[in-house]
Amino acid sequence: MSAWERLADALLDSGVEGLVVCGLPNVRYLTGFTGSSALLLALRDGGVFFTDGRYQLQADHEVRGAKVVVARGSLIAALVTSLKRRKLRRVGFESRRANYELYATLRSGLPGVQIKPLAGVVETLRAIKTSEEIAALRRAVELNSVIFETCLREVRPGRTEREVADGMEAEMRRRGGDKPAFETIVAGGPRSAYPHAKPTLNRLKRNDLVILDHGVILDGYSSDMTRTVALGGLSRQGRRVYQAVLEAQQAGIAAVRPGIQAAEVDRQTRMVLRKHGLESAFVHSTGHGVGLEIHEPPRLGRREKTRLETGMVVTIEPGVYLEGVGGVRIEDMVVVKPNGCEVLTPTPKELRVL
Amino acid sequence: MSAWERLADALLDSGVEGLVVCGLPNVRYLTGFTGSSALLLALRDGGVFFTDGRYQLQADHEVRGAKVVVARGSLIAALVTSLKRRKLRRVGFESRRANYELYATLRSGLPGVQIKPLAGVVETLRAIKTSEEIAALRRAVELNSVIFETCLREVRPGRTEREVADGMEAEMRRRGGDKPAFETIVAGGPRSAYPHAKPTLNRLKRNDLVILDHGVILDGYSSDMTRTVALGGLSRQGRRVYQAVLEAQQAGIAAVRPGIQAAEVDRQTRMVLRKHGLESAFVHSTGHGVGLEIHEPPRLGRREKTRLETGMVVTIEPGVYLEGVGGVRIEDMVVVKPNGCEVLTPTPKELRVL
Repeated sequence: MSAWERLADALLDSGVEGLVVCGLPNVRYLTGFTGSSALLLALRDGGVFFTDGRYQLQADHEVRGAKVVVARGSLIAALVTSLKRRKLRRVGFESRRANYELYATLRSGLPGVQIKPLAGVVETLRAIKTSEEIAALRRAVELNSVIFETCLREVRPGRTEREVADGMEAEMRRRGGDKPAFETIVAGGPRSAYPHAKPTLNRLKRNDLVILDHGVILDGYSSDMTRTVALGGLSRQGRRVYQAVLEAQQAGIAAVRPGIQAAEVDRQTRMVLRKHGLESAFVHSTGHGVGLEIHEPPRLGRREKTRLETGMVVTIEPGVYLEGVGGVRIEDMVVVKPNGCEVLTPTPKELRVL
Repeated sequence: MSAWERLADALLDSGVEGLVVCGLPNVRYLTGFTGSSALLLALRDGGVFFTDGRYQLQADHEVRGAKVVVARGSLIAALVTSLKRRKLRRVGFESRRANYELYATLRSGLPGVQIKPLAGVVETLRAIKTSEEIAALRRAVELNSVIFETCLREVRPGRTEREVADGMEAEMRRRGGDKPAFETIVAGGPRSAYPHAKPTLNRLKRNDLVILDHGVILDGYSSDMTRTVALGGLSRQGRRVYQAVLEAQQAGIAAVRPGIQAAEVDRQTRMVLRKHGLESAFVHSTGHGVGLEIHEPPRLGRREKTRLETGMVVTIEPGVYLEGVGGVRIEDMVVVKPNGCEVLTPTPKELRVL
């Protein structure tokens, strides 16, 4: 089934005749539009796409599956006019994406119409990737791995975290990536113990553990990988932590298959770390979906009941963070297959001592 | 008056006892917090700041003017609990910043309380900069001009737009900027006729007009400047357009003073271009406020009734775009002073032929 056919079913299930789609990644998913000014009225039999004058040419060129309307004034006003003309009685809107003003304008502009907050309708469709999307994600992941290998030679004592991160982001652009999927993380020594460390002007030192977490967007699709490398000799404790995280990461990958609950994959990585006495040092979730956004459903967290399905693409990224010592995180992207999963990330995971 | 004192007055004027501030730049303005997970309950006599466990240390270090609460669950839930305990009866929220879910949670969690949508309360305070803020903006503007001069040598035939833009952004980071304030625009030849052109892999050519529009964020404050340069000989028409835009830009600057309507500044630049028969080729507004955000009030547009006040910082950036020929835009940042304005941008504006 196409995305629009699945959406028609979802609208029927939600009891609405139309859905106001305001999240730009959702608009892009349904129409192909890559600009930054857009609203979409998704109906059971197609869509109406609203943009402003700046994007007329681009919309004519890109948008498929929806009629293009170039609004003279605000997009919401044009949308309300269109809704009135269509005399819909039950209209949904993206309650986690919409700001209050969008809701209030629909509410006051459409007296007598039921305005229904709906969360995650398009995101649920997006969680299962088409073969074209998987191909696009594979290209982004492979480019990301090439960037990692290319930039690894810059990871050495004396370089600042910032220099290494900037070098990686420059390489993303040089090789044709759209842009970084998120702020590249390069964290050395004690700073590797901060899961969301921003690169600083601190210099990498001998014997540092260095976490490199980066993603490139290619043709709209994101990639995400983490490797932890050692600059010279690693302590016994460092090696032990590395092996434990690698074992946990492999257990997570081994657990991924259609039908398994997301929480169960998370539990598998956590159990390995518990065995090594490191569970309390794993302070985030095991992974998340990746696609047109760097974080999208499903989330692989402790309480996530979603069952994985063939075609979902997720990260598996356990980590251990010991204050004063350092951290280790290892992250791949995998695609759920009928019999398990395929690891998309080609970069090896044995400890590299640089 | 301090920001908090002015806010207390604004709350009184709006008829609310407290305001739920969810826009991160607004939270930063009032508390100094630079992280990405925050909600602020602003009261007439101070504030309560909510964040999650990841930001505890950072919040303790940064937040001033508000009590810090680290939420165990969602920040909104913690906020609702705090509001209930305080027994407020009229609470505002930032209606253009809040998503629907925030509104719905306040609405359902606080029965009997008046929940009032308010737009632009904190933004209005922010429009008038303190002397510390003007000093910070001046530093960002001056750094931006240094980056322009440094990178100008890379603007030459054979270079791609993308290479020049990447070089400028790398220079921003090298010189200690936080990050680019927006995606750097480098647009050569016919592409300079697109006001929001993204840098492409097209190579700059002899006789191209090249628009360079870039900003660096330094210590949280943004800068924004545009210059148009010529690669070698410029046609008679090109020179004529350049001089017209420069004259319009100077007319805009000359118009800026306390008490003038924003729309009137816009009209002054437009009138000059009309005199040169180029008014219809000026397709955007004359300028916008700059501060913790790259675009913030006041907007200098055709219908903006806001009157400028001492301490406002705005861009003046008329442009002319001729399809198939090219475009010219010249942009400075200025601060409104009691007797007019001071141009912050030190970069000269005579046509440079490289």
